[in-house]
Amino acid sequence: MRHKPGAAVVLLSGGMDSATCLAIAASQGHACHTLAFDYGQRHRVELEMAARQAKAFGARVHRVIRVDLAALGGSALTGDGEVPRRDPGDRIPPTYVPARNAVFLSLGLGWAEVLGASDLFIGANQVDYSGYPDCRRAFLEAFERMANLATRAGTEGQPLRIRAPLLDMGKAAIIRRGMELGVDFKSTHTCYHPDAQGLACGLCPSCRLRLGGFAEAGLDDPLAYQRLS
Amino acid sequence: MRHKPGAAVVLLSGGMDSATCLAIAASQGHACHTLAFDYGQRHRVELEMAARQAKAFGARVHRVIRVDLAALGGSALTGDGEVPRRDPGDRIPPTYVPARNAVFLSLGLGWAEVLGASDLFIGANQVDYSGYPDCRRAFLEAFERMANLATRAGTEGQPLRIRAPLLDMGKAAIIRRGMELGVDFKSTHTCYHPDAQGLACGLCPSCRLRLGGFAEAGLDDPLAYQRLS
Repeated sequence: MRHKPGAAVVLLSGGMDSATCLAIAASQGHACHTLAFDYGQRHRVELEMAARQAKAFGARVHRVIRVDLAALGGSALTGDGEVPRRDPGDRIPPTYVPARNAVFLSLGLGWAEVLGASDLFIGANQVDYSGYPDCRRAFLEAFERMANLATRAGTEGQPLRIRAPLLDMGKAAIIRRGMELGVDFKSTHTCYHPDAQGLACGLCPSCRLRLGGFAEAGLDDPLAYQRLS
Repeated sequence: MRHKPGAAVVLLSGGMDSATCLAIAASQGHACHTLAFDYGQRHRVELEMAARQAKAFGARVHRVIRVDLAALGGSALTGDGEVPRRDPGDRIPPTYVPARNAVFLSLGLGWAEVLGASDLFIGANQVDYSGYPDCRRAFLEAFERMANLATRAGTEGQPLRIRAPLLDMGKAAIIRRGMELGVDFKSTHTCYHPDAQGLACGLCPSCRLRLGGFAEAGLDDPLAYQRLS
């Protein structure tokens, strides 16, 4: 008998990668339970986009958990320092939120245990975001080992799998896969510097990565931009 | 040259164990940064006790982070089901909050990274709480490995140590050590069923463990109880 897909928890950020990750989880037949985080991020529209993706892919339950990461300080994305307009090169960028994926995966782990879920999906990607230590395979493998020692389910023989299907994909490949599976990329948020109307800048490192991915995939980005350079 | 104690993050719950853990961290010369969690627990007095302990041991900063664990469901301590009045025996008790220590340690990890802390202390104890999977050495070791792959500091060669000095101590030993180091056990919260005035019941599993520890240590519990059986 083949493995029957069980319930899955899918972390959603409102961005392109986690939307594609959800599409993949749903395409594998998992009963998806989506989880987004209200963590003090600057761009609240991310949460609206996450809810739209959850609805589009038929999530059984979509939940938003409040966790006050901004209280820890240390990141441009939660209010400390300026969000960069240019690429920081090889260094870990200032938009890195300390231990964010460890916190989000731990909360996903808690829900997975309550649900009896078999899989916990995260849209982590180590190709285009190699500057974030918590997006690498070694981290995710260590998290999985820890997770199965942390919980009742793991210690009683129902291990949880940490799934990162986008881990080794480039941006263009993610976009192509998402398009195949019906992701509405118009309803995904990317920009670090949207204007008052929510239009993306098209110039920040995050927008450039997105636009480069669409260009490489030979596809049009359905998003409207403040200006296209 | 001997190892000079660096900054430490100390998780505080308002209970006896974490208060003693803080006393130990402070006695080792660490600059202690204490972290408590507002996670939807039933007994808000825990947070007041945590703040008292932080002040008593000269914490540099005491912070309370909101994280809505109750939204995940699954525990008697955050509102699902009844908190037991008797000991559940060998099974994992219903007061277990799914993945709680993984979530709390992950948030502590985030703050430790922002502070450049060398140590993260938790009052976990595997002797008297062996029913909680996330209080065991194997879990804490796996967490430490994961933590040092999750962060900028860990990957750049400043590993964080997860410290659980109470891990193998019985309740009586914890109480004796705490007394030696000046812990005010009157300002620690234990009871699952305090009355409207905040008086402990003296009968729930948590109170029994506490009273048994004081009895074994040959010391008087300074706490007032609803009744002493």
